[in-house]
Amino acid sequence: MLPVTFASDNWAGAAPQILDAIARANEGPARAYGADDLTKKVEARFCEIFEKDCRVFFVATGGAANGLALSVLTPPYGMILCHEASHIQMDECAGPEFFTGGAKLLPLAGFAGKLTPGVVSAALAGFPDRPPHGSPASCLSLTQGTECGAVYSVSELKALCDTAHEAGLPVHLDGARFANAVAATGAKPADLSWRAGVDTLCFGGTKNGCIAAEAVIFFDPEKAADFEFRRKRAGHLWSKTRFIAAQFDGYFRDGLWLTLAARANAMAQKLSAGLAAVDGVEISYPTEINEVFAVFPERVAKALLDQGYFHYPWITPGDPAGGAMQRLVCSFQTTEDEIASFLDVVRAV
Amino acid sequence: MLPVTFASDNWAGAAPQILDAIARANEGPARAYGADDLTKKVEARFCEIFEKDCRVFFVATGGAANGLALSVLTPPYGMILCHEASHIQMDECAGPEFFTGGAKLLPLAGFAGKLTPGVVSAALAGFPDRPPHGSPASCLSLTQGTECGAVYSVSELKALCDTAHEAGLPVHLDGARFANAVAATGAKPADLSWRAGVDTLCFGGTKNGCIAAEAVIFFDPEKAADFEFRRKRAGHLWSKTRFIAAQFDGYFRDGLWLTLAARANAMAQKLSAGLAAVDGVEISYPTEINEVFAVFPERVAKALLDQGYFHYPWITPGDPAGGAMQRLVCSFQTTEDEIASFLDVVRAV
Amino acid sequence: MLPVTFASDNWAGAAPQILDAIARANEGPARAYGADDLTKKVEARFCEIFEKDCRVFFVATGGAANGLALSVLTPPYGMILCHEASHIQMDECAGPEFFTGGAKLLPLAGFAGKLTPGVVSAALAGFPDRPPHGSPASCLSLTQGTECGAVYSVSELKALCDTAHEAGLPVHLDGARFANAVAATGAKPADLSWRAGVDTLCFGGTKNGCIAAEAVIFFDPEKAADFEFRRKRAGHLWSKTRFIAAQFDGYFRDGLWLTLAARANAMAQKLSAGLAAVDGVEISYPTEINEVFAVFPERVAKALLDQGYFHYPWITPGDPAGGAMQRLVCSFQTTEDEIASFLDVVRAV
Amino acid sequence: MLPVTFASDNWAGAAPQILDAIARANEGPARAYGADDLTKKVEARFCEIFEKDCRVFFVATGGAANGLALSVLTPPYGMILCHEASHIQMDECAGPEFFTGGAKLLPLAGFAGKLTPGVVSAALAGFPDRPPHGSPASCLSLTQGTECGAVYSVSELKALCDTAHEAGLPVHLDGARFANAVAATGAKPADLSWRAGVDTLCFGGTKNGCIAAEAVIFFDPEKAADFEFRRKRAGHLWSKTRFIAAQFDGYFRDGLWLTLAARANAMAQKLSAGLAAVDGVEISYPTEINEVFAVFPERVAKALLDQGYFHYPWITPGDPAGGAMQRLVCSFQTTEDEIASFLDVVRAV
Repeated sequence: MLPVTFASDNWAGAAPQILDAIARANEGPARAYGADDLTKKVEARFCEIFEKDCRVFFVATGGAANGLALSVLTPPYGMILCHEASHIQMDECAGPEFFTGGAKLLPLAGFAGKLTPGVVSAALAGFPDRPPHGSPASCLSLTQGTECGAVYSVSELKALCDTAHEAGLPVHLDGARFANAVAATGAKPADLSWRAGVDTLCFGGTKNGCIAAEAVIFFDPEKAADFEFRRKRAGHLWSKTRFIAAQFDGYFRDGLWLTLAARANAMAQKLSAGLAAVDGVEISYPTEINEVFAVFPERVAKALLDQGYFHYPWITPGDPAGGAMQRLVCSFQTTEDEIASFLDVVRAV
Repeated sequence: MLPVTFASDNWAGAAPQILDAIARANEGPARAYGADDLTKKVEARFCEIFEKDCRVFFVATGGAANGLALSVLTPPYGMILCHEASHIQMDECAGPEFFTGGAKLLPLAGFAGKLTPGVVSAALAGFPDRPPHGSPASCLSLTQGTECGAVYSVSELKALCDTAHEAGLPVHLDGARFANAVAATGAKPADLSWRAGVDTLCFGGTKNGCIAAEAVIFFDPEKAADFEFRRKRAGHLWSKTRFIAAQFDGYFRDGLWLTLAARANAMAQKLSAGLAAVDGVEISYPTEINEVFAVFPERVAKALLDQGYFHYPWITPGDPAGGAMQRLVCSFQTTEDEIASFLDVVRAV
Repeated sequence: MLPVTFASDNWAGAAPQILDAIARANEGPARAYGADDLTKKVEARFCEIFEKDCRVFFVATGGAANGLALSVLTPPYGMILCHEASHIQMDECAGPEFFTGGAKLLPLAGFAGKLTPGVVSAALAGFPDRPPHGSPASCLSLTQGTECGAVYSVSELKALCDTAHEAGLPVHLDGARFANAVAATGAKPADLSWRAGVDTLCFGGTKNGCIAAEAVIFFDPEKAADFEFRRKRAGHLWSKTRFIAAQFDGYFRDGLWLTLAARANAMAQKLSAGLAAVDGVEISYPTEINEVFAVFPERVAKALLDQGYFHYPWITPGDPAGGAMQRLVCSFQTTEDEIASFLDVVRAV
Repeated sequence: MLPVTFASDNWAGAAPQILDAIARANEGPARAYGADDLTKKVEARFCEIFEKDCRVFFVATGGAANGLALSVLTPPYGMILCHEASHIQMDECAGPEFFTGGAKLLPLAGFAGKLTPGVVSAALAGFPDRPPHGSPASCLSLTQGTECGAVYSVSELKALCDTAHEAGLPVHLDGARFANAVAATGAKPADLSWRAGVDTLCFGGTKNGCIAAEAVIFFDPEKAADFEFRRKRAGHLWSKTRFIAAQFDGYFRDGLWLTLAARANAMAQKLSAGLAAVDGVEISYPTEINEVFAVFPERVAKALLDQGYFHYPWITPGDPAGGAMQRLVCSFQTTEDEIASFLDVVRAV
């Protein structure tokens, strides 16, 4: 029997349609380094989905997408404002500092991984522009959905982008779970990105059924001017780029990306509702995408692990539970049976 | 009809066995970030093939493998000796400088992309150790097979490694076409690497039938101490690492890697012999692996392109042909028919 | 009439004894790049003053001293814990990130620019070691005296160093105003540094009467192994190093350094006491060295500026005054008359 | 008796006028970080001397000047063409790679440290623009006078700048011995810099009688846009900037800079002529500024050292003497007596 895991959406494999798309792309030779037809076709598909001529670049990991995107949005001596629990601050081993050549990250607080215009404004005021002493604020980085499973509404996102733009900062959006946010809100991709003011989006595929596929999307083509050099020197330009393009080809076909994300979100809803109904279990953040954050007694956590239900305790800055939180992530492969049996264990203990 | 291409071995797709291996690996969930069973199994397979306990790290591109490997072999103020035509000097957009945090590359000359102990010794003497003024020589980087299609014999490699070690330098080996070199020489992988003195090998799979699979092999585990941090911050740690491991799983099964490389090499031999027999065509370097470098009249180059036979002129430092060289690369997919029809065109013009 | 300034201790010129020492050092030729006799003599003097064989390196600025020192105490992917108001976080334009090749700074809160073992421990717990995801905590950076004019006692310093060492972190001490701290506490230099557990001290001379003289002191010589390369590549090795050595030669002669620091401290005490006695003025932090932080009505600040008394508002993270604070810095050149006339203006308004 | 040294011009002390200027600048408080009146006055003086509105930035070392200047002339993935014997390639411990965030240096050959348009053009052709694979050529760096004591004429300089500009590259001029070149040629500073096409000049004072004073001059103010941030984060902005300005104040007063340089040049002429007249001594390069390169028997070198005449063997790429060369540098302090007694020793042996 395979284990049941809520450890992370990246413990899931690839959706079969993604493998099919890779097989299709494998016919015959193709130009290398992104000059192939499939890459061009999929780039165009991104423009359709986002209703805008944009520049799209494929890489294999979210860390690469974020780091490379930030490297063109900030000078090496600049300061990136981000949430203290964000992936770029907590989970990329100082990758943004590396890619940018030494930019500073300023971690900010906010419930459920979300920033607010007030928090951003206060940070800018408290770290005033004193050239050349303080590192000048140069970029606002947001995450959609957040590390804590929350989602910015279109208007929340717009308010934050407006605040950033008024201070002269471009906005980077870490969209490792962008599909989940689109599925959750029903908003158009354009509304959740450039129409709200996002300058550059890191659009994730890996956590939602791809093997290794992320796209950096520049809504302002000028900002993309030297991206290809930065991607190449960082070893993130695949010679056989068609095999990332192929994954997105499969991902977008028949709306697969939203089907998968909606499925993962729905499973999380079930899991969250089920847990909330159990005495002694507390849901730490609203369950808005495919992640559930909950506090339950340690003996429950232990029993779950003993019976093969994987998940991780989640320690994060600003944690309202004081370090007692567990993170449970659903993927497109999570089944209702898995959730039911998981909840059975929780209830039994 | 599909075009016939000698443009590069990375224009080829993936071998079907590689796709099969990926599909096999897609069963059920797996731990992320390299903690899965398949990754561990394939790491162990590398140790068997190289007859040594070694530390193995997977990445998706050769540029990442080289840059990351070099970043642990040299301090950021060190100097890497390399061939002036090497990939790290000519084709990675200053990637090694980026990954190392600013190390210097000292380009050296030598026929067919090969260095000799004499050239290395002369460079060390000419760039003497004057701490802290000159950047101290810190690493020797070699390529096997070279950018010019040549192969170091075991004894040539050993002599170079001895020269480097006597000067206190570790040896990095760019093995993007290591499989071709093994197939060409019949030498054991261990003899072409650590037994000859290589400290760290970047073992390529991508050019020889994989999608995106490279392995950085540290024969001295101590040198690998902080590699995982460097790979992570550079965005080169896949969350679904099993899908690189899977490619190598397929690559090593039933000796596929050597079968594919031998095939590509054999095709290049045929092509080289065929071209050498044509009046007015000159072979620039001995054809030792899967690359043929030749000079032929421009009207021939043009006719080939017009009839759908892709290949590139090859401008390289130290070029004996003064800029008139063409590079023709065979892959595991190259057929005898393609070579025959290509030679027909050459002969006809 | 010269203006009266409390803007910063670096608005003061050099003490005449420092210029005399430079003139003395100017006799005849001297070996360059630190191989001269005076440099060696002054390095030895540092060892006497600190009662320990240590490695000493001269640079011209505090930013260089801090950045270079940190670059050998942390790997490029590491994380430096520091106060949110520290110079390395607020005033060096992302210099530490630059010198270290991309290390992360984690800003922590604490009254008057001081950290406590509890704050450090909580930060380490909240940013847990999850190799290779989170940037691993790699260094604790403290400041003595702090940006807010406070001083760590020997026992406070020791407790912090113990906390750091238990977590495996070396301790960096920014001592731009170390002389003021020594003068204020009466403690021996050794007690305020290595005996308390400090691994590397950036010892400042510039703010206290030198022209441009800072020393990076490694109490553990092994940590200094590659410092000379890092200093050189960063352009911080003077060819005529004797002229930094000369400044320290003058600085240490007859205890000048402590005389100057004690004078600046005493003036600040007078200023602070005078201000505290004025209705409507509030002293924000205890005045422990040569800096006074106070809140007074804006019309007072304006009147002072109008009458030629320079000083700056001081916006700092964790500011208890909510942005209304003024910083007044005394130097070794500050006179009792200046303070009296300044207080007269304050009282008059 | 003081030793007689031809080791380097940086073994000399400071000219007394420089110390006087520092003493003058020490009157009263002054704004820090370059906002003081003297700094502004001296910046304006540079504009007069160069007959152009330009942006001028002071730093303390030549390595800082070069590295910082290059960091704004090249992107981090760019390639700087330079002479293989240049200071930036041979003597700055990979500093340019550090300051630029990883740009590549391409070392080129040429007699006496000089490049020619032909060499530059050939390099550009041999390292063709293949975005994003090869690091794109981004800057041409020249040195005036060269490391081998040669000087570019105005027309030579112009031809090189034209070649660079045609390829879209800005020109950086390392002018550590610019004063010597001006004194030697009698050309106007403007003619030897921007009028010939130089975009950014690193103007040295240290080797010619200052303590530590270099100026980075941007003839195109736009290129200077973010220099102040880069200087600050690298720790090269002095708080007491007036003390670098003061050195230049003294340096320019009554043409001191050219007097000192002319003196050093004249002494080198005498030394060179004297040596050339000795049997068995060969002058390796024309003596055009204050450096003499000569080959003489090892017993002569030994005898000189034994009798207290310091100088260094000089190993440099492209050395016509095969490693047997000695470098003899005259400074503004070199006397005719020293040269006479030196030559006596040579003749005696």
